[in-house]
Amino acid sequence: MTDRARASRSEFFVFRDITTRWMDNDVYGHVNNVVFYSWFDTVVNAFLVEHGVLDWTEGETVGLVVETMCRYHAPVAFPETIEAGICVEKIGTSSVRYEVGIFRHGDDLAVAEGYFVHVYVDRATRRPAPISDQLRAVLLPISKN
Amino acid sequence: MTDRARASRSEFFVFRDITTRWMDNDVYGHVNNVVFYSWFDTVVNAFLVEHGVLDWTEGETVGLVVETMCRYHAPVAFPETIEAGICVEKIGTSSVRYEVGIFRHGDDLAVAEGYFVHVYVDRATRRPAPISDQLRAVLLPISKN
Amino acid sequence: MTDRARASRSEFFVFRDITTRWMDNDVYGHVNNVVFYSWFDTVVNAFLVEHGVLDWTEGETVGLVVETMCRYHAPVAFPETIEAGICVEKIGTSSVRYEVGIFRHGDDLAVAEGYFVHVYVDRATRRPAPISDQLRAVLLPISKN
Amino acid sequence: MTDRARASRSEFFVFRDITTRWMDNDVYGHVNNVVFYSWFDTVVNAFLVEHGVLDWTEGETVGLVVETMCRYHAPVAFPETIEAGICVEKIGTSSVRYEVGIFRHGDDLAVAEGYFVHVYVDRATRRPAPISDQLRAVLLPISKN
Repeated sequence: MTDRARASRSEFFVFRDITTRWMDNDVYGHVNNVVFYSWFDTVVNAFLVEHGVLDWTEGETVGLVVETMCRYHAPVAFPETIEAGICVEKIGTSSVRYEVGIFRHGDDLAVAEGYFVHVYVDRATRRPAPISDQLRAVLLPISKN
Repeated sequence: MTDRARASRSEFFVFRDITTRWMDNDVYGHVNNVVFYSWFDTVVNAFLVEHGVLDWTEGETVGLVVETMCRYHAPVAFPETIEAGICVEKIGTSSVRYEVGIFRHGDDLAVAEGYFVHVYVDRATRRPAPISDQLRAVLLPISKN
Repeated sequence: MTDRARASRSEFFVFRDITTRWMDNDVYGHVNNVVFYSWFDTVVNAFLVEHGVLDWTEGETVGLVVETMCRYHAPVAFPETIEAGICVEKIGTSSVRYEVGIFRHGDDLAVAEGYFVHVYVDRATRRPAPISDQLRAVLLPISKN
Repeated sequence: MTDRARASRSEFFVFRDITTRWMDNDVYGHVNNVVFYSWFDTVVNAFLVEHGVLDWTEGETVGLVVETMCRYHAPVAFPETIEAGICVEKIGTSSVRYEVGIFRHGDDLAVAEGYFVHVYVDRATRRPAPISDQLRAVLLPISKN
């Protein structure tokens, strides 16, 4: 489908199994392209929740999604379980850019890959807020550089 | 939330782990009621696919969903993994009625329960088609009676 | 698909156009059964929001969905726009039961129909809360009895 | 949220109203970022279906989505109806790149914008297939250059 290089599993530092659903498959019998972004959202936010740095009801800041992108290399289909991998490409003053890879279970080369950018804002004022020390400490171990 | 009796795990014969997704949670911070039906769909069809009795591209018959129902007892929320359980309540001439229970992982009492009815029709004519012997053989071991 | 009587447009008092989406269609090329429930949710809650009786961030009570059901008579498919109709079948002390019909645009007979039950609870205590006078005044004009 | 220039309505040539759904809103009370891509999918494919150049059951070629991107400028929320606009940025030998803008109803500046790339392949062999003359004739009037 494309001759671009496909990302390898070794480029990602945290993985999560995600189960496909019957309705994910579209008229062509493969998971619809939109659904992949729900996996991006899921792998990033699950990591943050499970590390205690995302509290969507009480947190002082909110991570807004300001940009996402995905390139699709190969199809997946229900009832497969896929693996979503992430690493942090860049931590800015108030933003975090994640790279995300989607893999058929156990495969080395991604079926899809892209990025996901959070900008943190103050919950009340909606002005950009600095990345907290606590969040930075969680992100550094899964950062590329 | 309700004083109705809640279904117990022992009433279901096949279980499947299903991962929640960030976008499943609605404005109240719990998985939206609609999403539960995507789990009904998923547990039933995954069972059929994995037992070789659902081929959505080549099968001579198609299972149409003609009725579903769900009662909700308690909330679940991302990033939980839930378990969906099924049993067959009734096999008719051309229809199958499944009972479905949704459980928090490892719990005995369902957070939601309902049913899901397939009517099989001929792919081309859309007229009701008898349940095949092969399908019946797959369904009997998970039937209540 | 079924010989049950189909609901007629005249049984519903409020209608809303809802646009289908490409990913609503499943492997059989018709809107997946789960999606219909997202329309139930939408027609009921849009009515409540637009009549000023649903404020999901500040309202003292929250309407929990405790039971829904849908019977499917005929398929619809992207890119159709459908119409969702509602009426109130019963107002209880703390609950409201809506009947919902889904129509192909301009048709008299429903392609799907069912019900949707809200139980109101206090936002903080989660105990059942009485239907407010304001809500009752909005619901009475669309009630069957 | 960002100081990047926002696309204006005048950059797009075809528009489609799309209704939001209750479950589109996420825990922050705004439409989840993933849902925007379902609108990209919808506006492009509805245009193709309604111009007779997308037949997902019989067409000799299939348009695979190989890359999508979205930048988010401002939130939208249920029960708004949004407008999705498209234009064709580039027609290649076997690919089409669309620009997509999402607008609050009647607004001039986009709340989100991005692109969507289809690569056409032969339905059977999955090898790239040239853009048909019929498709090209439909795309040219909505092309930027």
